Amino acid sequence: MDESVETNDMHPDELRRHAHAVADWIADFVGRVEDLPVLAKVRPGEVSAQLPARAPEHGESMDTILADFDRLIVPATTHWNHPGFHAYFSNTGSGPGILAETLIATLNDNAMLWRTGPAATELELRTCSWVRDLLGIPERFEGHIEDTASTSTLVALAAARHRITDGAVREKGLAGRPPLRVYCSEEAHSSVERACIVLGLGVEGCRRVAVDDDFRLDPATLRAAIAEDRVHGVVPMAVVATTGTTSTTSVDPVAAIADVCAEEGLWLHVDAAYGGAMAASERFRWVLDGVDRADSLVVNPHKWLFVPMDCSVLLYRDASAFRAAFSLVPPYLMTPEDDVARNLMDYGVALGRRFRSLKLWFVLRWFGRDRIAALIEHHVDLAAVFAGWIDASEDWERLVPAPMSTVLYRHVPPAMAGDEDALRAHNTAIMDRLNEDGRSFVSHTVVQRGGDPRFALRMAVGNARTQRRHVEDLWERLQRIAGEVATTA
Amino acid sequence: MDESVETNDMHPDELRRHAHAVADWIADFVGRVEDLPVLAKVRPGEVSAQLPARAPEHGESMDTILADFDRLIVPATTHWNHPGFHAYFSNTGSGPGILAETLIATLNDNAMLWRTGPAATELELRTCSWVRDLLGIPERFEGHIEDTASTSTLVALAAARHRITDGAVREKGLAGRPPLRVYCSEEAHSSVERACIVLGLGVEGCRRVAVDDDFRLDPATLRAAIAEDRVHGVVPMAVVATTGTTSTTSVDPVAAIADVCAEEGLWLHVDAAYGGAMAASERFRWVLDGVDRADSLVVNPHKWLFVPMDCSVLLYRDASAFRAAFSLVPPYLMTPEDDVARNLMDYGVALGRRFRSLKLWFVLRWFGRDRIAALIEHHVDLAAVFAGWIDASEDWERLVPAPMSTVLYRHVPPAMAGDEDALRAHNTAIMDRLNEDGRSFVSHTVVQRGGDPRFALRMAVGNARTQRRHVEDLWERLQRIAGEVATTA
Repeated sequence: MDESVETNDMHPDELRRHAHAVADWIADFVGRVEDLPVLAKVRPGEVSAQLPARAPEHGESMDTILADFDRLIVPATTHWNHPGFHAYFSNTGSGPGILAETLIATLNDNAMLWRTGPAATELELRTCSWVRDLLGIPERFEGHIEDTASTSTLVALAAARHRITDGAVREKGLAGRPPLRVYCSEEAHSSVERACIVLGLGVEGCRRVAVDDDFRLDPATLRAAIAEDRVHGVVPMAVVATTGTTSTTSVDPVAAIADVCAEEGLWLHVDAAYGGAMAASERFRWVLDGVDRADSLVVNPHKWLFVPMDCSVLLYRDASAFRAAFSLVPPYLMTPEDDVARNLMDYGVALGRRFRSLKLWFVLRWFGRDRIAALIEHHVDLAAVFAGWIDASEDWERLVPAPMSTVLYRHVPPAMAGDEDALRAHNTAIMDRLNEDGRSFVSHTVVQRGGDPRFALRMAVGNARTQRRHVEDLWERLQRIAGEVATTA
Repeated sequence: MDESVETNDMHPDELRRHAHAVADWIADFVGRVEDLPVLAKVRPGEVSAQLPARAPEHGESMDTILADFDRLIVPATTHWNHPGFHAYFSNTGSGPGILAETLIATLNDNAMLWRTGPAATELELRTCSWVRDLLGIPERFEGHIEDTASTSTLVALAAARHRITDGAVREKGLAGRPPLRVYCSEEAHSSVERACIVLGLGVEGCRRVAVDDDFRLDPATLRAAIAEDRVHGVVPMAVVATTGTTSTTSVDPVAAIADVCAEEGLWLHVDAAYGGAMAASERFRWVLDGVDRADSLVVNPHKWLFVPMDCSVLLYRDASAFRAAFSLVPPYLMTPEDDVARNLMDYGVALGRRFRSLKLWFVLRWFGRDRIAALIEHHVDLAAVFAGWIDASEDWERLVPAPMSTVLYRHVPPAMAGDEDALRAHNTAIMDRLNEDGRSFVSHTVVQRGGDPRFALRMAVGNARTQRRHVEDLWERLQRIAGEVATTA
């Protein structure tokens, strides 16, 4: 064995030097990100073309690597951490969150077992309780952290599937059983369907129920769908209600849906990935009305609670339902603490588990409840201001209610009124031109409620650094570009 | 609206100050971690007892939070990044990986769509190819990054399930179908069973096949099991072969298993989460013999390739199989690049996707192929040296071959020979006393191959800072403690 071979990790002195350089880089970045284009100005393949085909034979200096990061990566990155990011749902890699991520990687802890991460395990349980209390959810809920809401919903529906089959599915699987079915609204997130695919229920195992005029799941239609399915030998399993749907941010009537679930013996999962955060403000506690009767709910601190990606809090009333569905303990993972401590690997799919609670802890403590509530209110107010401008403008149309921090709107030149194809082309042109100048990034959606699908632009507020001036700037540019596009069309 | 309200994220100046403090903290930590106890010296509930019941009403200073991190969290953390961590599979939160994680959180990019993360998407595809080439896997493989091997295996088996049902499972689910079955060895990881539970195949959908004397899946037994299942109307779906099983690090005969899969029309997934990294050294390319014929394989750079948690590379021959199984694109996620660029959200469960490739890029570049290979060789050699000491000592027994960097062993005082209960108690006592002094952390497993289950201590080498002196120290302490325990028993 050659003991002289350089087998060490980066020397602490070298790490110190680069970590200080990175410290300056991130502080500079946060100060200048607003001057960068939000949507990356690259074409598919441009980054790849500049990357070597193979990893280097010999190590390269960190200075070279960091220079390449600046040269190749940053300009080809769509800046989610930009105050002008209004696409999809805006989020924030906040200062305290960034600091926490550095420490998470340094400890490199794995909270699979209590023993392998005592602080990480107990902090995860506690910070999930903090989120629960912050949002006014009853104390009987507890939870853990998953990567994303897609996973949280998958895990919750796996627990529901376990319960509806009295645990039989765990041993026997679904073969030979009558089909199980999950219900959600037409506006629910695609992750519900994807969870049904993964769980072996199939796309048909996800029945999308019609929405009312405000794009909310209609409990009467839900009840009828369940009754109809039972007649056909389908076994209803769970309902996924949404608080803040992805396209329109509609809020399903959770209390009425909970009534249906209680009558029918179904698991109620609430997707509050985006909207749940709103309940941090007393003004908006209504968004979680009825959630106290859910079996599980998901809220993503990496969406609207200023925690960097990824951090999805899954809360539930009965932890044992998750443990029963997932726990598998081979001999090499048995520990003396198994009977007295919680091993979080028992409650979901992943065995290896990052110390995600550290960033949640840093962010909740640094902001504090009052500032989080103020920020949420600020964002909702900014969206309301924007919606007001749309409503007050003759050539602009708002397509759906805007109960949260997201507005669906479009430009409707009188000549195009009623011509959905023309409106789609016109508003796509506005969006593309707007996104091109780099000062903000908006996305689009399609709204359908009877009649033709209607193309909509979509403006979301959720980044901690977004101020009124960003929204004003967006509105001014939208109006100017709409005029230009109309003229050149 | 109150524009005076403090709605901003941490000011860049404040971030700069704390980031520099954190830079010093992490460099100091890496320099001093060896002096900390590896296994946390706390009891269940001790951390919780010191955490407030609720998040603070008002924001706290970062200085306070960082001080609490030092006071509450670090002493209650089991230090995976310690060179004396020999439990489970050792890993490394390396310097370049830590720097990358800081930047990942700062950009807070989400590579769900090419458009939302062009650099992140293209770098992910490229670094997966780098890993493929580093390990000598044919160029027809490509891949993406999941969080953990549990998820990678779940995703691969979902693609297998899709293929074996000609896609029908995606729409119709498993109800009414004959049972599907996955095969793996008795020594395969519990994540295979867990994937079968999640996918709706159930624990019975995972048939564990007997191993040979070296704990490797026996292809003849596999073939017989498949034939037997077909007779009973079960539909064989996939085989999971393992390169470096979790308990004994045995290496299944992948080429022979590939023959069976080819004959039977089964998907072959290879779990090389730990062992795959060994192929970075030309000396050890044999560990991936036959993998060129697999449909998919998983290797975890967060295990033995010095990347911080979490980073699991899933490679496959046919990307379209994954896209067919998972892709669901609602209107609001459609982009102009959909036909010309890859949207990585289409290939797995999670929609939100961290910029994990950045840390893989930093680590592969900073170390370089030669230094990675040298480190892997160093670790395998250290394990061989330790195994040699065990083999040369009359009162110590090695229980299984040690082809990788992990050794299974135990102390066998002559008086206890053949008494498995006594040996378990004796070696548990040795392990507990050894772990108590904090200089190293070893775990245990149970080995069974006919006869009684045999309790084994388990020593894994995988941290980049582990040197011969750490292994020597472990061996000296093991011998001393074994003598003390035998005397006091």
